[in-house]
Amino acid sequence: MNVILFEPAEMPPDGVVRVTGARAAHLTRVLAVTPGQDVRVGIVDGATGRGVVTDVDGGAVALKCSFREVPPSVPRVDVILAVPRPKVMRRLWAQLSALGVGRIVLTNAERVERHYFDTHILQADAYRPLLIEGLQQARDTRVPAVSVHRRFKVLIEDELDAITGDALRLVAHPGATQSPAALVRDHPGRRVVVAVGPEGGWNAFELNLLESRGFQPVALGQRPLRTDTAAVALVAVIHDALGRPDAALES
Amino acid sequence: MNVILFEPAEMPPDGVVRVTGARAAHLTRVLAVTPGQDVRVGIVDGATGRGVVTDVDGGAVALKCSFREVPPSVPRVDVILAVPRPKVMRRLWAQLSALGVGRIVLTNAERVERHYFDTHILQADAYRPLLIEGLQQARDTRVPAVSVHRRFKVLIEDELDAITGDALRLVAHPGATQSPAALVRDHPGRRVVVAVGPEGGWNAFELNLLESRGFQPVALGQRPLRTDTAAVALVAVIHDALGRPDAALES
Repeated sequence: MNVILFEPAEMPPDGVVRVTGARAAHLTRVLAVTPGQDVRVGIVDGATGRGVVTDVDGGAVALKCSFREVPPSVPRVDVILAVPRPKVMRRLWAQLSALGVGRIVLTNAERVERHYFDTHILQADAYRPLLIEGLQQARDTRVPAVSVHRRFKVLIEDELDAITGDALRLVAHPGATQSPAALVRDHPGRRVVVAVGPEGGWNAFELNLLESRGFQPVALGQRPLRTDTAAVALVAVIHDALGRPDAALES
Repeated sequence: MNVILFEPAEMPPDGVVRVTGARAAHLTRVLAVTPGQDVRVGIVDGATGRGVVTDVDGGAVALKCSFREVPPSVPRVDVILAVPRPKVMRRLWAQLSALGVGRIVLTNAERVERHYFDTHILQADAYRPLLIEGLQQARDTRVPAVSVHRRFKVLIEDELDAITGDALRLVAHPGATQSPAALVRDHPGRRVVVAVGPEGGWNAFELNLLESRGFQPVALGQRPLRTDTAAVALVAVIHDALGRPDAALES
């Protein structure tokens, strides 16, 4: 936990907040804070700042918080992901928010098992704490927007333009010869959206539809990767090619 | 499973092999092979090739295998990793071998818990099947060399030169301002070794010792990442910057 995040409703106007539970346990046991020390704090979807410890009392810590004026910018990468196995998706939420994505668009595909859509891990009460865990790791405050789409064709044909605007469109495809980094560097300043298929890949219809809507096939070498490894690897490579979007994050 | 790997001792000189167990289950249930079809095969640490199905009989599949002359090249990235929590390490083995690493050097550090060294997941009988699982995902045959070092200082001062030779040396450090991709592109043709610290990072002594031995600090943006996310992200970014080392892999 490299920043302690608060929901907006938790933060009173005077910035003095009494922390209990997991965040207090982190402050007292891992950071071993004492009055006078300060720690990184932030408001979910808001600004980061510093919290000065004013009191440590058993399981509770009081912090006097002050915030910067400008919140961190929204990460410039969005991900379209064919819903992976629930166990894999559970691990991906925090990894994606830690790497920094503006939006996570979950979609159906031929090789996605239908019952994946019925699992708890696609419900906001399950994934939101995991997204916030990743933000607290990465010192960010911006919760990725999440949407779940059971109809791939409708998503790509009718909904995508409104969701991702004019972002550079990439689709991960193990046979592709282009590196995502080279394409991203050719389009400086543009947001990027990358579509990652299911285990076994997009089928021909899906890949054709994506390409007809401007998605360019890219691959990281010739090694087919598991969905979770591919998603983490692609987002990392694209961020690195975009340069440093995190100037607003406190070092 | 994108290639079926065999240990050298499993492969008779005539190349006709009878597969049972998990690999046969994959051939019959996932690929639903029938006689005459061919599948990608490979020898652990050897060449890749094709296996023509000659017989499917209940749980067993007979393959007539032929191999290329030249095995895939060893991936050009090595990783030094402060031993992470066993649960995290269990997941990393297959991810690292799928991404492609020549060597995994596991080391102690101040912020590594001592009992991590006593866990089963650092034993070859536990990790070797996971490394091979990653290779079968990525169509590679080269099992990363693994070594475990309980003394960080001895590793870096006395053993490292023999292990990694004149590879470009990088150390992941969240405060760093250099991107690994830029440094790698500045040293075309060189192998790369990247050192990834424990949760909480290398301590000052460790970072200084690494820097004194030529390790250059690098970071992926300003976001501190969990060990497993950082390791996957760094190896992916470095591979992308190295270009395509996998020309020997069959597409």
